[in-house]
Amino acid sequence: MIDLSPEQFRELGYRAIDLIAEQLKTVREAPVRRPTGDLREQIMSQPLPQEGQNPSDVLEDAANRLLPYPMGNNSPRFFAWINSPAAPIAILAELLAAGVNPSVAGGDHAATYIEHAVLKWLKIIMTFPADGGALLCSGGSVANLIALGTMRHVKTEGRIRAQGFQSESAPMVVYTSTQGHSCIQKAVEILGIGNDYLRKIPVDADYRINVDQLRAQIAADRAQGLRPVCVAANAGTVNSGAIDPLNEIADLCVEQDLWFHVDGAYGGFGILAEQTVGLYDGIERADSIAIDPHKWLYVPVECGCVLVRDAQAMRDAFSLIPPYLRDDNALPWFSEFGIQQTRGFKALKLWMALQHIGEQGYRESISRDITLARFLQKRIQERDDFELIAAGPLSVTCFRYAPPGITDLDSLNRQLVAIVQQEGQIFLTTTELEGRLVLRACVVNFRTTEADLDTLLNVLAEAGQRVLTKP
Amino acid sequence: MIDLSPEQFRELGYRAIDLIAEQLKTVREAPVRRPTGDLREQIMSQPLPQEGQNPSDVLEDAANRLLPYPMGNNSPRFFAWINSPAAPIAILAELLAAGVNPSVAGGDHAATYIEHAVLKWLKIIMTFPADGGALLCSGGSVANLIALGTMRHVKTEGRIRAQGFQSESAPMVVYTSTQGHSCIQKAVEILGIGNDYLRKIPVDADYRINVDQLRAQIAADRAQGLRPVCVAANAGTVNSGAIDPLNEIADLCVEQDLWFHVDGAYGGFGILAEQTVGLYDGIERADSIAIDPHKWLYVPVECGCVLVRDAQAMRDAFSLIPPYLRDDNALPWFSEFGIQQTRGFKALKLWMALQHIGEQGYRESISRDITLARFLQKRIQERDDFELIAAGPLSVTCFRYAPPGITDLDSLNRQLVAIVQQEGQIFLTTTELEGRLVLRACVVNFRTTEADLDTLLNVLAEAGQRVLTKP
Repeated sequence: MIDLSPEQFRELGYRAIDLIAEQLKTVREAPVRRPTGDLREQIMSQPLPQEGQNPSDVLEDAANRLLPYPMGNNSPRFFAWINSPAAPIAILAELLAAGVNPSVAGGDHAATYIEHAVLKWLKIIMTFPADGGALLCSGGSVANLIALGTMRHVKTEGRIRAQGFQSESAPMVVYTSTQGHSCIQKAVEILGIGNDYLRKIPVDADYRINVDQLRAQIAADRAQGLRPVCVAANAGTVNSGAIDPLNEIADLCVEQDLWFHVDGAYGGFGILAEQTVGLYDGIERADSIAIDPHKWLYVPVECGCVLVRDAQAMRDAFSLIPPYLRDDNALPWFSEFGIQQTRGFKALKLWMALQHIGEQGYRESISRDITLARFLQKRIQERDDFELIAAGPLSVTCFRYAPPGITDLDSLNRQLVAIVQQEGQIFLTTTELEGRLVLRACVVNFRTTEADLDTLLNVLAEAGQRVLTKP
Repeated sequence: MIDLSPEQFRELGYRAIDLIAEQLKTVREAPVRRPTGDLREQIMSQPLPQEGQNPSDVLEDAANRLLPYPMGNNSPRFFAWINSPAAPIAILAELLAAGVNPSVAGGDHAATYIEHAVLKWLKIIMTFPADGGALLCSGGSVANLIALGTMRHVKTEGRIRAQGFQSESAPMVVYTSTQGHSCIQKAVEILGIGNDYLRKIPVDADYRINVDQLRAQIAADRAQGLRPVCVAANAGTVNSGAIDPLNEIADLCVEQDLWFHVDGAYGGFGILAEQTVGLYDGIERADSIAIDPHKWLYVPVECGCVLVRDAQAMRDAFSLIPPYLRDDNALPWFSEFGIQQTRGFKALKLWMALQHIGEQGYRESISRDITLARFLQKRIQERDDFELIAAGPLSVTCFRYAPPGITDLDSLNRQLVAIVQQEGQIFLTTTELEGRLVLRACVVNFRTTEADLDTLLNVLAEAGQRVLTKP
């Protein structure tokens, strides 16, 4: 009743594969998203099923209600947030992972070794020391949390686990830029440090942290009796792809005895691009790095990763196995290095994608994403109805629809983006930069072409004209 | 190069489905696990691939190196920890989820509504208020973390997010039993409370928390100037399936103004069983509950769930959207209620499994797992070479191989379990109960039969004899 016969499984499995193959066939022409109509009500009002149903009916029903209403990120014309399409080989890896269904907490089975292999490869890609600690996790938020949790452990000399904050006399202070991701704030809050002690340092014209102001703030905090402990630098801000001056920050952290963390959730893998030479210099000096394979390595969500230089500190910060019980001959369990006990097999999709695509293939594709962003920026500058607001070194572009003579551009762009989101020919979102609402287009998509970017601008301009001419 | 053509995807996809179908066909006879030999070295020494490889070769290679060396939990003779096999329909759901690849942070697409539907159903199953907050997450550790994080927010009247622990004059104290899961300790540590302030209260003969001692400890802590804030009760301990007296604890929490949390990661869904009538009474009064669909609802890892009575408090504890920007007409984003921003589509496997199996089907299967545990316990008691150590109300059994006249049973059982783990005909693990090493067999497996349990005892006894007779 719960089990399926091999024949039943094969029949339903082929059908599920066909459904995804069909999607692959139409993804280029299909709308990015479709209006959901009464789908919300229809799905959410369904009562808890009492009797079991035919599995084939369940599959067809799921296909009918799910597949036409995706978030849209498999489409070449999806430019919102930072959500890539899934590499098809990685979709199949998820199928195999679910079929084997291990918990990768640790132990002697293939999944454990595959995660170790993948972590080794990720350290090589990030130029990180081979003996550093590493762990796959749900995404950037948890990667940053684990990194800062290790920092907190080290900066309290291990007191925190037993005593909490009871034995800390001075509040810890963490630094990031005004462009730092909100998940740094969330980590600081979860860890009990408090966001009053998270300093958001101003940025320069390129949205990189101002190191002089950072230095001055650290001194001011020390003078006030606070305890600066960590700089969370950005290697690719979500707003504009800015990469903070990592070597300068590394120097400052050495001088000031601060933990040097790098949030590379979006931008970390930009290190592979041909256009970014030199920009990541210093990342190899980081105490910890957060990266997100489910962003720029094109594997399905969820797949984040945290790297910590001092593997022993990482283990000591989280392991529930007392040191005298740890077996030095066996590999340590992954669950000793993070916040989960049972852990899914996220490594397989990376392992298979890295073998199918190769480091070289990733270099080419990530470079191409950046080249496409340059193309978009050039087109925006060529047109007189758009203005370019920010174009960092990576693949995100902030811009506005700004036809001559229009003053309330915030309102115009807010209205036009609502229209295009609803109509679904393209999909993008907005952000705020220096108090202005701007359109934001991110390219982390091996399917996007120059023609898709021309469509993006044309659809936006057409919607903008409708806003301007509506009665 | 990264993309596959629909035809290629179909061909590889069928092959992947065939591989899993083949596994389903042989899972009953195949060994639970196989010795991994040089697999560790072979996988971990592989260099980062430079050039991309043929996707078909990648798939075959993954099949060859992964499928023969599983953790083993799909097998009917896997009794270790609490890892269930994956319901085949849920394996296909993971395939579809990866194919669509949404982030279920929130927003207007099908995946969002499917998670809402599933959370509604889970609240019904757990007899939890329909307007409570709820979220899927990676598993029990994070479910407990989010629950206790909300507790911490409420108990500091919201100060914690901005001020951290700076404004708290008295240390918070959290209570669980000596049988509470280690992830409660991990949550208390991550949240900055400190494990010095986690009290592990003794249990009665049935491994249920001693409420008199709990009450006395709370009074003693108050007398010392500490601040009791929360009881984390167990609805199914991992060691023996004990369910704490929930109504008594609920009464005490009301009287003492404590947050009433229930860790039901393993045992929560035991509420569906016919044998447990009355044991969960009081769970409907909990402030928060952690449950793990990837344990007893037979969906692939990862899938945990947290329920919080006060949805507003849960949102206020984690949301980075200021209240004045929240849109009361739209559904709130899931990312406002927990620790992740990007969130995978864990809901689909539950949605499809609950429809395929039905509440009634789950009632029958969970009841059957408990009946099988009763059968094992009866067999142990009938034999004179085993002794029963603990048999709670759920599906876990603690026992020892104890042939007459042998005194060092810890050593004997440690050695014999190492043998059977290596040989792979059955698989189970040990735990410690009152200073004794015991064998622990958990049945959360729709494939297990009475014959498998007889095999379990026979294999253990045979290995035990080998230990006893070795030169």
